[in-house]
Amino acid sequence: MYQSKLLSKTRKDAPKDEVSKNAQLLIRAGFVSKEMAGVYSYLPLGLRVMQKIEDIIRDEMNKLGGTEMKTSIIQSKEVWEKSNRWSDELVDNWFKTKLKNGTEVGLSFTNEEAYANILKQYISSYKDLPVYPYDFKSIFRNEARSKSGVLRGREFYWKALYSFSKEENEHNEFYERSKISYKNIFDRVGIGHLTHITFASGGTFSKFSHEFQAVTPAVNKEVYNDEVLNSLGLDKNKLVELKSIEVGNIFSLGTKFSEPFDLKYKNELGEEKLVVMGSYGIGLGRLMGTVVEILSDDKGLVWPASIAPFSIHLIEISSENDKVKKTAESLYGKLAENGIEVLYDDRDARAGEKFNDSDLIGIPLRIVVSEKGIEKGEFEIKERKSGKIEIIKEKDLMEFVKKFVE
Amino acid sequence: MYQSKLLSKTRKDAPKDEVSKNAQLLIRAGFVSKEMAGVYSYLPLGLRVMQKIEDIIRDEMNKLGGTEMKTSIIQSKEVWEKSNRWSDELVDNWFKTKLKNGTEVGLSFTNEEAYANILKQYISSYKDLPVYPYDFKSIFRNEARSKSGVLRGREFYWKALYSFSKEENEHNEFYERSKISYKNIFDRVGIGHLTHITFASGGTFSKFSHEFQAVTPAVNKEVYNDEVLNSLGLDKNKLVELKSIEVGNIFSLGTKFSEPFDLKYKNELGEEKLVVMGSYGIGLGRLMGTVVEILSDDKGLVWPASIAPFSIHLIEISSENDKVKKTAESLYGKLAENGIEVLYDDRDARAGEKFNDSDLIGIPLRIVVSEKGIEKGEFEIKERKSGKIEIIKEKDLMEFVKKFVE
Repeated sequence: MYQSKLLSKTRKDAPKDEVSKNAQLLIRAGFVSKEMAGVYSYLPLGLRVMQKIEDIIRDEMNKLGGTEMKTSIIQSKEVWEKSNRWSDELVDNWFKTKLKNGTEVGLSFTNEEAYANILKQYISSYKDLPVYPYDFKSIFRNEARSKSGVLRGREFYWKALYSFSKEENEHNEFYERSKISYKNIFDRVGIGHLTHITFASGGTFSKFSHEFQAVTPAVNKEVYNDEVLNSLGLDKNKLVELKSIEVGNIFSLGTKFSEPFDLKYKNELGEEKLVVMGSYGIGLGRLMGTVVEILSDDKGLVWPASIAPFSIHLIEISSENDKVKKTAESLYGKLAENGIEVLYDDRDARAGEKFNDSDLIGIPLRIVVSEKGIEKGEFEIKERKSGKIEIIKEKDLMEFVKKFVE
Repeated sequence: MYQSKLLSKTRKDAPKDEVSKNAQLLIRAGFVSKEMAGVYSYLPLGLRVMQKIEDIIRDEMNKLGGTEMKTSIIQSKEVWEKSNRWSDELVDNWFKTKLKNGTEVGLSFTNEEAYANILKQYISSYKDLPVYPYDFKSIFRNEARSKSGVLRGREFYWKALYSFSKEENEHNEFYERSKISYKNIFDRVGIGHLTHITFASGGTFSKFSHEFQAVTPAVNKEVYNDEVLNSLGLDKNKLVELKSIEVGNIFSLGTKFSEPFDLKYKNELGEEKLVVMGSYGIGLGRLMGTVVEILSDDKGLVWPASIAPFSIHLIEISSENDKVKKTAESLYGKLAENGIEVLYDDRDARAGEKFNDSDLIGIPLRIVVSEKGIEKGEFEIKERKSGKIEIIKEKDLMEFVKKFVE
């Protein structure tokens, strides 16, 4: 893609009310635009990262046996009343609105009720189970304060899978498999080595759930009370406290939702049984923000190859020089032909500005086309993460790039 | 995909309050589930159709030079006040809600304001233009009544592209190219031969816009008044009235939005000029619903190959017969290996029920595996659209299928 057609530009400063590192960098680099606190629009660069994260998660969910669907954002009061979660006293971060006829409706803040309600139409026999439907959708939470950038939005983009199993055993087997899927996801987006599975509160659902915590130099803290520690057989004095961000969570729901929704099936003996449910969430914006919090450096963003908006940042310097322009254009064409995603900085700007922008945007590999290089038949290559610079002969370039992109 | 794992099932009846043909069929066939009037969740079959429509539209938008981004659903009151469209008296179908601190916010009911507001950060010079950003997103309209199924929802999934051009000429050139893109889209989803471009009211923006109307045996009516007819040089008496559904519209917006947002650029002479805008919308659910209204028959849905949830409906009959099961499984594997999307009816059900379900779901090609067929080394093939049945020898099957899918 031509950088001159990218739509966004880098900025010197983020808005003054933006205190989080992730949003500051993402705004300055032109990945997101702030609509209001906790609400962001994704510009082309940011959307490309999100789509790659989405593709990775979708792939892992499908391997796990998941079936994708898309539930509505507007949700019925009646459905939520069944599980007693409509009340503002019990759920304090609802966004609600009204139809013209006065009927109150909610904006989906989670999806257990919606799934249980829909699945009730289709589950009647043991033959219908297990099933693992999942959704990518926008979720709304009316947070009193929202200062963590894309880590905790009032509106955010989310994957939620729900498992519907016949019994505890079947559920537990899937629950264990889901941990592996989640580990794969964090590996594939480039933070697996820093992400740990931890016990966490089960809320009203169960004694505890599992969270995936990515260790970071900033944010968050989860406190275990003595009762939970005891039940886990852990010694408080031996625990090490780390700063971390929760990047995913999985819950065993038991029959907490199948009961109020009367979600039952007939087993092979003709007996009616309640369905056993689980929920498996992951916030895509939060995952993106975590990668930013953990991997960026003082020059800007540093994207892992798997979710980088582009693989190569191709930079021409002295674009007024016809030879430089032609060489860069031709290289851009060749890379594109080989299916390599390239952001081509074709702008009429100084070399220093282009290099700074390139560091800020954080594409994994930079190729510089300059007059001097052309004379010598070579290109300067810089790896964003390590900062390592190499000079590559023209004839070796494509092979080098292909190897890097692999 | 195994039909036993599809999650949805066919139903005898749609909900009683569902009067539209499109929603009745989509609900009965298990493509959508009704949350409330005008709000639907997309089940796996329905989502597959939507994703194919989305892929086609995305491809055409990219060919047109579009750049994809994703704007937020929650929108600021301040932004909408600039164009004077926040007021409930002027826009009567807003969904609004409130942040915890009492701040009123809106749910995006269209996107002109959001785009103008975001682009203002990045447009300053003639070098920044033209740009053509677009979005796929959920749109919310608080309709007093909502009885047209997925044709006119309170919540619907939408593509909107906005053009930002330097002058009228540049705008007009793009506007004409967009008509070709739209024609391509309607061709590719299978209703091009029935879709016509028409003049329509320009609303508050301009004298007229263009709509794409798909001719149908049901719904809608657009009335031209004498003034508009005169200005188009048309004779009322020579017009033929057809029943049709609006499947897309394009608007020239002029400087209607760039003025209130002070969206200006410096031209090559250093003079400040207002950006010229256009908007290009298409509802994905509506397009899906239109295909249903136009192409379905008395047996059920009839999907064009390009947007069908699967290419092949593979049906085994007498699944208790081991040979039938094995042959069907092996054929399913072979088709999948060849990248062909197959829904495999592996359910333990009567042949008549499977055939009726298959007609209702409307996958383009049906392959039946039966004991009799296996004995003779042949398969029964039925084309859903024409109802034509053929007997194909086992050795010729893959070639036949590949040709059909092409």
